[in-house]
Amino acid sequence: MTTHRIAVIPGDGIGREVVPAGLEALRATAGRFGITLAFDHFDFASAEYWQKHGTMLPPDWEPTLRQYDAIFFGAVGWPEVVPDHISLWGSLLQFRRTFDQYVNLRPCRLMPGVRSPLAGREPGDIDFVVVRENTEGEYSSIGGRIFEGTERETVMQETVMTRVGVDRVLRFAFEQAARRPEQHLTSATKSNGISISMPYWDERVAAMASEFAAVRVDKFHIDALAAQFVLHPEWFDVVVASNLFGDILSDLGPACTGTLGIAPSANINPDRAHPSLFEPVHGSAPDIAGRGIANPVGQIWCGSMMLDHLGHPEAAAHLLGAIEDVLALGPSEAPLTPDLHGKGTTVELGEAIATRV
Amino acid sequence: MTTHRIAVIPGDGIGREVVPAGLEALRATAGRFGITLAFDHFDFASAEYWQKHGTMLPPDWEPTLRQYDAIFFGAVGWPEVVPDHISLWGSLLQFRRTFDQYVNLRPCRLMPGVRSPLAGREPGDIDFVVVRENTEGEYSSIGGRIFEGTERETVMQETVMTRVGVDRVLRFAFEQAARRPEQHLTSATKSNGISISMPYWDERVAAMASEFAAVRVDKFHIDALAAQFVLHPEWFDVVVASNLFGDILSDLGPACTGTLGIAPSANINPDRAHPSLFEPVHGSAPDIAGRGIANPVGQIWCGSMMLDHLGHPEAAAHLLGAIEDVLALGPSEAPLTPDLHGKGTTVELGEAIATRV
Ligand SMILES: CC(C)[C@H](C(=O)O)[C@@H](O)C(=O)O
Ligand SMILES: CC(C)[C@H](C(=O)O)[C@@H](O)C(=O)O
Repeated sequence: MTTHRIAVIPGDGIGREVVPAGLEALRATAGRFGITLAFDHFDFASAEYWQKHGTMLPPDWEPTLRQYDAIFFGAVGWPEVVPDHISLWGSLLQFRRTFDQYVNLRPCRLMPGVRSPLAGREPGDIDFVVVRENTEGEYSSIGGRIFEGTERETVMQETVMTRVGVDRVLRFAFEQAARRPEQHLTSATKSNGISISMPYWDERVAAMASEFAAVRVDKFHIDALAAQFVLHPEWFDVVVASNLFGDILSDLGPACTGTLGIAPSANINPDRAHPSLFEPVHGSAPDIAGRGIANPVGQIWCGSMMLDHLGHPEAAAHLLGAIEDVLALGPSEAPLTPDLHGKGTTVELGEAIATRV
Repeated sequence: MTTHRIAVIPGDGIGREVVPAGLEALRATAGRFGITLAFDHFDFASAEYWQKHGTMLPPDWEPTLRQYDAIFFGAVGWPEVVPDHISLWGSLLQFRRTFDQYVNLRPCRLMPGVRSPLAGREPGDIDFVVVRENTEGEYSSIGGRIFEGTERETVMQETVMTRVGVDRVLRFAFEQAARRPEQHLTSATKSNGISISMPYWDERVAAMASEFAAVRVDKFHIDALAAQFVLHPEWFDVVVASNLFGDILSDLGPACTGTLGIAPSANINPDRAHPSLFEPVHGSAPDIAGRGIANPVGQIWCGSMMLDHLGHPEAAAHLLGAIEDVLALGPSEAPLTPDLHGKGTTVELGEAIATRV
């Protein structure tokens, strides 16, 4: 019986509150399915670590984390202590790049019992997945400033797209689409305005489409696509997007399903050459941190995605089912958190789901 | 009595259908307020022109258009005939850059009689303006490809932000905010991920804020901001954004107010050294073009913004009032177009508004 070794990194803010709830649900599920999970906790990738050490990570972070089968991650960012671009490029964005987690998979589903801000939408109307490129594109670290501090100051930042980087995430997205009943892939572009990188993206989509004849492909410019997420979320099945566009769509999508608090994400290296990382879409949320009211569902759903990745699809489905069952009870029957219009706490909602498991 | 000379460019698709409705409403308003408008029509900046001439514009387009006090523009883009990045960079984006229309002003308001896709939202809940940088940023033409056609193919595109370019649009936005009752400015950023250009944007916002002590300033990363447009549109008053982020937000905002069909935009050179351009936010809409059902309200509202820019605020307000009055009748009393849940045509709705004027 294999033991799956999991590195646990709570990070900052509500990351520290929702990770314990995620672990509790994972333990319950593992127990039920006879899966052995071994958790090791790390305090790096946090503002507190930064305050003590002046860096976000210890020098040996890479070999350390490489020993694990997966990383269960909370959230990072505490701008009062360390600017976001330093904390993020010093941790999460570093992990994604170093461990070549080139797919960021973000399911977006209107759950039973959750109220959508969109009028008249029911569970089933919104159920798609965003496949986000996760290592290159607009998130480059190339660029700089010239004539600094003068009236002529000019700042440049490169977007970088490579054939390898674009094709591999497109292939993953096409494969996902091919496996789903609708077989429908939407590509997010902006080739009318961003006239060098985005036409290239379109070209590669067209080339890949020829290999997947059964998949219906369409494309929307990102401005129009954002609008259609609100007007016609039922149109979408698999949405593939560059790093930045995927980032935007995978916050907007969950907002349309009621709250960012329930949305999970899987930062995957599909080749399994490196550990993958599972983190909720929401951030550290300094505005509500410390009050015990953060929604743990995103983190728990991450646990489900992690179980699936580790080769336990049944356990993953069971945990997701438990989440759905508890949400479906609604705010009067279940201890749902305030973002779900309830009065429950992080701990209470986490326990309700673990119990249900 | 001055004559305002207006260059009219219908462009492609529904641009040709809504521009006549816009002109009719403008003529009616001008008549009522004793304003003299002289319109000259141009067929360039269209796919038809491209088919005839192999370019989007004639060689003397710049001195030609410079003679006008404003440009009344429909929409451009017909990808079956000419790729979007060629048609757009060969016309609209060229105009914005050459005429230094560095502010793109895009009001976003839930109108009486229009159904929002957001549950429970009433007119008054959504009423903000997006101030979009319009000449630089992510819409640069710098970049290219290397190792073309091989597995090593790499594509780069620069984002370019200048002190001059960022500061002038921020100043405009702060001035707008200072004049409005709420005095609230929201900056769209992504400085946690886009770690060179966006931290610079944040820095300039902070510097400018010190000159406008009365304006309450906050910032959101673009992913979270897109989510909040759906969850809390009532939070926003003036939103300032880079070229790309402004593009996205100014489609998403109008979607939250029911339809892109009513949204106008003003591409302004506030220094009045060059002609400004007024165009609806929607594009040429190949999917509904030729059917006579496009919503002319965005184009007519552009006419109102143009009158304001030409120094006729009363006439502008009157025309906007006429739009509101007709929309408020709702789809059963007024010939609203299908996107407004009615059965009216472009011509009918245009006439109803012109008559109301
Ligand atoms: C057509 C396109 C290039 C343009 C833009 O991206 O600026 C449009 O979306 C707009 O918002 O005016
Ligand atoms: C925190 C931030 C850098 C990150 C991103 O932009 O990728 C986050 O928004 C996400 O979506 O995981």
